[in-house]
Amino acid sequence: MAAGDEFRPLDEASLVAYIRATPALAASLGGRVDALSVKEVGDGNLNFVYIVTSDAGSVVVKQALPYIRCVGDSWPMTRERAYFEASALREHGRLCPDHVPEVYHFDRAMSLIGMRYIKPPHIILRKGLIAGVHYPLLAHHMADYMANTLFFTSLLYNSTTHHKKQVARYCENVEMCRLTEQVVFSDPYMVSKYNRWNSPFLDKDAEAVREDDGLKLEIAELKSMFIERAQALIHGDLHTGSIMVTPDSTQVIDPEFAFYAPMGYDIGAFLGNLILAYFAQDGHADQANDRKAYKQWILKTIEESWNLFQQKFLGLWNKHKDGNGEAYLPAIYNNPELLGVVQKKYMTDLLHDSLGFGSAKMIRRIVGIAHVEDFDSIEDASKRASCERRALDCAKAILKGRRQFESIEQVIAHVRSVTHD
Amino acid sequence: MAAGDEFRPLDEASLVAYIRATPALAASLGGRVDALSVKEVGDGNLNFVYIVTSDAGSVVVKQALPYIRCVGDSWPMTRERAYFEASALREHGRLCPDHVPEVYHFDRAMSLIGMRYIKPPHIILRKGLIAGVHYPLLAHHMADYMANTLFFTSLLYNSTTHHKKQVARYCENVEMCRLTEQVVFSDPYMVSKYNRWNSPFLDKDAEAVREDDGLKLEIAELKSMFIERAQALIHGDLHTGSIMVTPDSTQVIDPEFAFYAPMGYDIGAFLGNLILAYFAQDGHADQANDRKAYKQWILKTIEESWNLFQQKFLGLWNKHKDGNGEAYLPAIYNNPELLGVVQKKYMTDLLHDSLGFGSAKMIRRIVGIAHVEDFDSIEDASKRASCERRALDCAKAILKGRRQFESIEQVIAHVRSVTHD
Repeated sequence: MAAGDEFRPLDEASLVAYIRATPALAASLGGRVDALSVKEVGDGNLNFVYIVTSDAGSVVVKQALPYIRCVGDSWPMTRERAYFEASALREHGRLCPDHVPEVYHFDRAMSLIGMRYIKPPHIILRKGLIAGVHYPLLAHHMADYMANTLFFTSLLYNSTTHHKKQVARYCENVEMCRLTEQVVFSDPYMVSKYNRWNSPFLDKDAEAVREDDGLKLEIAELKSMFIERAQALIHGDLHTGSIMVTPDSTQVIDPEFAFYAPMGYDIGAFLGNLILAYFAQDGHADQANDRKAYKQWILKTIEESWNLFQQKFLGLWNKHKDGNGEAYLPAIYNNPELLGVVQKKYMTDLLHDSLGFGSAKMIRRIVGIAHVEDFDSIEDASKRASCERRALDCAKAILKGRRQFESIEQVIAHVRSVTHD
Repeated sequence: MAAGDEFRPLDEASLVAYIRATPALAASLGGRVDALSVKEVGDGNLNFVYIVTSDAGSVVVKQALPYIRCVGDSWPMTRERAYFEASALREHGRLCPDHVPEVYHFDRAMSLIGMRYIKPPHIILRKGLIAGVHYPLLAHHMADYMANTLFFTSLLYNSTTHHKKQVARYCENVEMCRLTEQVVFSDPYMVSKYNRWNSPFLDKDAEAVREDDGLKLEIAELKSMFIERAQALIHGDLHTGSIMVTPDSTQVIDPEFAFYAPMGYDIGAFLGNLILAYFAQDGHADQANDRKAYKQWILKTIEESWNLFQQKFLGLWNKHKDGNGEAYLPAIYNNPELLGVVQKKYMTDLLHDSLGFGSAKMIRRIVGIAHVEDFDSIEDASKRASCERRALDCAKAILKGRRQFESIEQVIAHVRSVTHD
């Protein structure tokens, strides 16, 4: 499969030669590799991404370099992330083919993945949310994706033997895990050269985060859970920039942070980034569009995403309750009443985890290293600060009070209360 | 190092030949291998254990066979447990040399460990507790052992990189982990051919365990935590049969169940087995010795074990708080007040985990496959049943109510209330 035995960073010219020498990639272009056009489109933080087009089709080629792209070679980062990305794409793709692009080719030595091109009019969900586009199927699709990928990689479905083997394998993706630890669970709560915020407007807010003992107590618990608890194979970076959408289609990309970790980290990333999008809307409102209806749609999507996820996840659990999953053996949890109580507890705990992780992800996007375009695209810094501050205050309150919420409706009510909408 | 490339089960004769051909073992016997005496002493459930004596010294040789010794070859079990036992003995021995025997020789192909002979008058702690012997240093020693082995293998001391590497390695000890899952967290709560109890006296009690939905809800949470949460390198079977004692010395043996799991599983195993010993005392009382003072000593030992463990563990934490441990970075948890709050929460959570796991271990010893000599040696079955029932009721109450306890003194008060002593 490998077209080269050693790593070389590709450019547009050498990529063409690589594709011509690699049957799986050439085939994905209909074998028409005489005249290829190549466009580098990596707007993420980490990797190089090329769209390669022949007159018979297109393919995406993604290459990891031994550093973080947006920082440069001053921040080294293992190329092995490409291996874990390819592994997770294949595993999650098997479990949820409708919402994960196929991998056509993986070259471990080159840290290179060839995968299905997600065609226009697909755009990054975050950009759609900024533009105010409605995605009526988003909640259904994401609930499907999260329920399938998380349930089928957990001990609700698998034996301990299978689980431990997979856990061990993904333990090697530790550099990516450490990157998350630093940027999500550490830097925002300390003085760090990587932090930035909308200064001077949020100077006091950033300082308050660093001095909030209650918040630090909670973030420590979440960080330990993130490192220690191998609950399911998570995507690991499921924000709205890792999702490509049209009104009819939802495709999840970029799982290079995948490892066995708490399910709530994925669910929280998705919901937390929707809440960020919600708080950014006031900054995008203008006379032509006050965005009020769109804000309601975002809240409805958050509510539906959780409730549909819960419904689908419990559906899978009930369907497979007599299977090989070792968490709840049928001989013990053998009556509907007990199973109902067990499931209610499981989902409530998962909601609390998701709210904790989701809030942590919101906080880090406001006072940590990597911000979101939802806010960054608001030109007026003062207006932007007011949106960011409300999101930050909301996240802090949810993080600290997460165990009080018993339903997503209560969370939505809290989000609404911050803005009095 | 290996004296043989392939596995052969040894007997007393072939063991002598093996030792003569193995320099590290011959050296541990002062090189005097002409006239060796060999005695098989494995009274545990799993392995063969030989004491080999020359006129210059003694050594223990332990061999794992590919099944569980007490059941026979109808219950196959990986010989690789010897590898994990040797690994854990070495790692825990490095961290706590006073309370762990040295490994002189390990032969992976033969699943064979040569280690320090723990000399008479050392006896198994469980036997000492049945005999009513006082061990004034036991709490100190076990607090030392638990604090050192658990702290130094956790993220309070280590980097995530080191931690994940070790976690991955011990994931391979999955068969032993599954054995625990079955006998501790599953079988006692379902109809299983392996379960036994003091019948007919405890028939209703065993049935009540199988029908207690509240208990099953809690045991599911503990089981998931046991499988999913890689908190520290635990011994994995730290009952009073895995500890050898004199009044001056405490030696922990038999860590073949070692893997990265919740710390509370070890602490709970030790404390839970002391509570079993406490409830067994009434069955050992006679006119010469009513055991009342001894019961008080056991309770005092439980109290001191936890409190000294907590003190030593927090002492290590404070000593190393500016080190490489990644759970609580000094730049974030940088003030004494916050660190105090964080530590209090950590220790309270750990107490609750320990009480949960400890209670689960008590329950399984009364209605599961493997019982304890503390009770089994009480000849009068009716008297034995009354001791067992009180222990079982106590364990069920602690397991369900564990989050209400804020100190070990409150737990002791509860244990006392069951017997009105």
